[in-house]
Amino acid sequence: MKSVIKRSFSDFFFEYETPRQVLVKNRRIAVVCRIIQLGVLSYIIGWVFMYEKGYQTVDTAISSVFTKMKGVSFTNISGKERIWDVADYVYPEQGDSSFVVMTNYISTEGQKQGKCHELPDGKNKCTSDADCDEGKYKRTGNGQMTGKCDTNTSTCEIYSWCPVEDDRQIPDPPILWTAENYTLFIKNSITFRQFNVVRSNLVESVNQSYMNKCLYNRQTDPLCPIFRLGDIVERSGFNFSEIARVGGAIGVLIDWDCNLDLNIRHCKPKYEFYGLYGTGKNDKEEKPSLGYNFRYAKYYVEDKVEKRTLMKVFGVRIDIIVHGRAGKFDIIPTLTAIGSGVGIFGVNPTLPPSQKERELQKVTYHLNHSTTGPCRIIACLHKQLFNLICGHSNL
Amino acid sequence: MKSVIKRSFSDFFFEYETPRQVLVKNRRIAVVCRIIQLGVLSYIIGWVFMYEKGYQTVDTAISSVFTKMKGVSFTNISGKERIWDVADYVYPEQGDSSFVVMTNYISTEGQKQGKCHELPDGKNKCTSDADCDEGKYKRTGNGQMTGKCDTNTSTCEIYSWCPVEDDRQIPDPPILWTAENYTLFIKNSITFRQFNVVRSNLVESVNQSYMNKCLYNRQTDPLCPIFRLGDIVERSGFNFSEIARVGGAIGVLIDWDCNLDLNIRHCKPKYEFYGLYGTGKNDKEEKPSLGYNFRYAKYYVEDKVEKRTLMKVFGVRIDIIVHGRAGKFDIIPTLTAIGSGVGIFGVNPTLPPSQKERELQKVTYHLNHSTTGPCRIIACLHKQLFNLICGHSNL
Amino acid sequence: MKSVIKRSFSDFFFEYETPRQVLVKNRRIAVVCRIIQLGVLSYIIGWVFMYEKGYQTVDTAISSVFTKMKGVSFTNISGKERIWDVADYVYPEQGDSSFVVMTNYISTEGQKQGKCHELPDGKNKCTSDADCDEGKYKRTGNGQMTGKCDTNTSTCEIYSWCPVEDDRQIPDPPILWTAENYTLFIKNSITFRQFNVVRSNLVESVNQSYMNKCLYNRQTDPLCPIFRLGDIVERSGFNFSEIARVGGAIGVLIDWDCNLDLNIRHCKPKYEFYGLYGTGKNDKEEKPSLGYNFRYAKYYVEDKVEKRTLMKVFGVRIDIIVHGRAGKFDIIPTLTAIGSGVGIFGVNPTLPPSQKERELQKVTYHLNHSTTGPCRIIACLHKQLFNLICGHSNL
Repeated sequence: MKSVIKRSFSDFFFEYETPRQVLVKNRRIAVVCRIIQLGVLSYIIGWVFMYEKGYQTVDTAISSVFTKMKGVSFTNISGKERIWDVADYVYPEQGDSSFVVMTNYISTEGQKQGKCHELPDGKNKCTSDADCDEGKYKRTGNGQMTGKCDTNTSTCEIYSWCPVEDDRQIPDPPILWTAENYTLFIKNSITFRQFNVVRSNLVESVNQSYMNKCLYNRQTDPLCPIFRLGDIVERSGFNFSEIARVGGAIGVLIDWDCNLDLNIRHCKPKYEFYGLYGTGKNDKEEKPSLGYNFRYAKYYVEDKVEKRTLMKVFGVRIDIIVHGRAGKFDIIPTLTAIGSGVGIFGVNPTLPPSQKERELQKVTYHLNHSTTGPCRIIACLHKQLFNLICGHSNL
Repeated sequence: MKSVIKRSFSDFFFEYETPRQVLVKNRRIAVVCRIIQLGVLSYIIGWVFMYEKGYQTVDTAISSVFTKMKGVSFTNISGKERIWDVADYVYPEQGDSSFVVMTNYISTEGQKQGKCHELPDGKNKCTSDADCDEGKYKRTGNGQMTGKCDTNTSTCEIYSWCPVEDDRQIPDPPILWTAENYTLFIKNSITFRQFNVVRSNLVESVNQSYMNKCLYNRQTDPLCPIFRLGDIVERSGFNFSEIARVGGAIGVLIDWDCNLDLNIRHCKPKYEFYGLYGTGKNDKEEKPSLGYNFRYAKYYVEDKVEKRTLMKVFGVRIDIIVHGRAGKFDIIPTLTAIGSGVGIFGVNPTLPPSQKERELQKVTYHLNHSTTGPCRIIACLHKQLFNLICGHSNL
Repeated sequence: MKSVIKRSFSDFFFEYETPRQVLVKNRRIAVVCRIIQLGVLSYIIGWVFMYEKGYQTVDTAISSVFTKMKGVSFTNISGKERIWDVADYVYPEQGDSSFVVMTNYISTEGQKQGKCHELPDGKNKCTSDADCDEGKYKRTGNGQMTGKCDTNTSTCEIYSWCPVEDDRQIPDPPILWTAENYTLFIKNSITFRQFNVVRSNLVESVNQSYMNKCLYNRQTDPLCPIFRLGDIVERSGFNFSEIARVGGAIGVLIDWDCNLDLNIRHCKPKYEFYGLYGTGKNDKEEKPSLGYNFRYAKYYVEDKVEKRTLMKVFGVRIDIIVHGRAGKFDIIPTLTAIGSGVGIFGVNPTLPPSQKERELQKVTYHLNHSTTGPCRIIACLHKQLFNLICGHSNL
């Protein structure tokens, strides 16, 4: 018994098996095979290793964005001069990655709770009190109907903030058309946890003195983190005067694609601009619901009565989106890439077999040309896939 | 020397090697083997190609969301009539993808800086001045203790915004219970950079006239971008009157799964609704810290004294989340999918070998049935894995 | 004809082919080969299965975060006492996942529209009216120039909100330095759609009574969802008094890595803290544009004139980021992992061949030691890759 175990053990450790080989001598097939092997080899080296960097582990970034607008606008509406600065035109105020820059507005001052008639804009017509359901609310309406029909305007009377906002006419040109010259400063920090790397878009070449003067330009200043609003709008395919009037949304993409095998200095952001909501350059068709607007109220008390100023704000909404990706050499993905390359496509270095082994193991056949028609080529391809998988055996 | 190189070269290019084959004739094993091969083949075609679309490259979307609520509520609190419109009940105002719709509130008007006693809610009891550490702040308290204990209420005196908010009783029914009928309009734009495709949730069939009337319904109007708040709440598994009273959070998922090999018109969003924070349909258990509320202050000056109205706002928080994914045919993943399919599982088309080759290369064994017990079947499975990997050689 | 089809059919189903094997008896090579096989086997079991859990399908979470600060600060600025509570110092108010806690500010009260001179901070000097372009705006300026140079301050006269904010001196120590003791409560809900699992960071052990008292501590209370602001700041590598003065940004990462094959109770969050924008622990260098601040205005009407209080707010911005990932056993990835393991590395269980088969199929060679120099070892490695791929054939 003991000797059986011992023999099995020694068999297991001291013998190994390998398929027997046939050496086929045939020019046409062999050349096709070598070409296929070459293609596979260049695929693995060129694509898997060079292009897709299969030898790296990849981490995606945790990112944080802080924004700050600068610039003032001066308006003169029927003799009333007014200056607008950043605290007046940015919503929300705290420097978020998604914010709105007001470029136009419809202001309804002195609204207070009460009864008044609906806006005669054609959507809320009535001919008699029967058309105005008491206590009901119309989707296109601004308040709760009292049940009366105002005969002057042919609209229902409503309980609402009165007077009702009249937004039938959007100011043209936009009130804050000088918003074009506002500047946007973006501070973006990314963290690659896996590699313990923290990086900011204020890279080495962006120092304080440069930032005091620079303005982003794709060719000359691609790293300057200060952007002119008009440039952003135009780069994303919009027309500024159009977007300033009715509003619009723009995506600013900060793209980090870092190869951490190189010096960290080469890890730099790229800025791209997209028009969102279908009026950008990629989408010329007419679409419903263009523009970007929202309503906003400032409340105050006057003579013991609560009042509000309602603003319908049109503006440029900017969404800053960060794509961060870093790769670094790692032994596991390298082995896996080589392994699956060798495994799937079998790129084995061909080792010249010694003469003796060749004699011992191989059997050579000479196929004559009559057996190598098109059908044979297909056979070779099929065969070759096999060889690609299993490689050569030269022992 | 020259002739040696020449011969090596011609050997390399004009010869190739392939394992020698054995042809085994055995019904039982062969049938098992064919069945396994069939299973593998259907796995690759059915799963890898049909289901997982292994022949496509995939891109995830950059997305932007804009929201707009509509609707008014009318309240009558002890004779004081008031109308609430969108500028009054949405936080923040600018149409973000995450926002809160106020459905209930506790308002504390006329707060001003000063000294007053803590709320006698059982959390901040004191029996003597020694219990009220001067200059300290209790986690459950509302201000800085002055060191005195108010004997009437048995609570510490504090320096705070006075009077202190009394939130022991949440209004029931919720003050703005008609919020159920508000509508939410969602505009969502997605960009697949890799394929240069921009798409909006206002797809072809959603035109202006449709949008004026439609309301989302899973069966009848699955593409209408206008949602009734009550429907959203119910679809996510909450009870509206409950959530309106104490607040709650709901996730609206916009799911895009686009096959760009088809016409772009088939790339449509799907809307799904999730209850968050443990009161939704997926989670019946009682959990701590239910509800959703936050505090908000409106400041004003009265008789030269700064005052504020503190609002404890209960509401429905809606988080809109976009999952965008598009696939398109590409040659590289197709080859990789075929390659790894062939490589790993070796689905080779079996080519009938010519009689001559069979004679030349193969050796046929006939195994009798005595050698094909259960142990043999396992051997076959093991063997089959080998065959699956290395396929057949028919030259 | 019929019989030919029948025979092909029976050939296809009742025969199968397998490569012929050579059994090589050579200790040195065989041992190397077995060691390589062992390494590969442990790679697959240890790495692919144990470490990377290759047998699971993975889903990433949809998450929602709600935050709530607590705490009050008491300030005494030149005799004017004031208490600050959560409605006064958090921006935005609605409990977002990204918010700012004010720790310091520069307040400019009573600003109104008018003409005044620029701040004499060295950036906006002028010597004569010619330096002040009428109707223009300087990037470093606060308003639109009127064309006059104020000779007292040597700065241009501007049309602006007057008086201009003077932010040359940042209050030191920070006004709200007691912000260190504020607490942050985080409620985080995650949903794994694929597995129909909803989970909150208020896990089983975090009940109401625990939450009333607990405070996050990495060692003793790693699951308590209540964090002291000072602790967060210190854990992220900042110095609190520094960050409170000029502001800063901190990322709070909630990391969920759940194995749903275990009981759901083991699915717990981990909290991590990162300093963002280059002043954290990972980045000691001096960088431009330190700090975090934004401007905010409160508007009011006094004697029929619109005025505002401008606040330059310095604070700690907290971005809460959720990484959610859950794995669960699934048959498809298990088969794929085994398949590619077997396929690429060919870990086949070695089945002892019966003596008869060995006689039938194999041919044994005894290589003498003279043929096993270093060159042979390489040959073995190469060979071994083949064996790893194609395994053993023992039929």
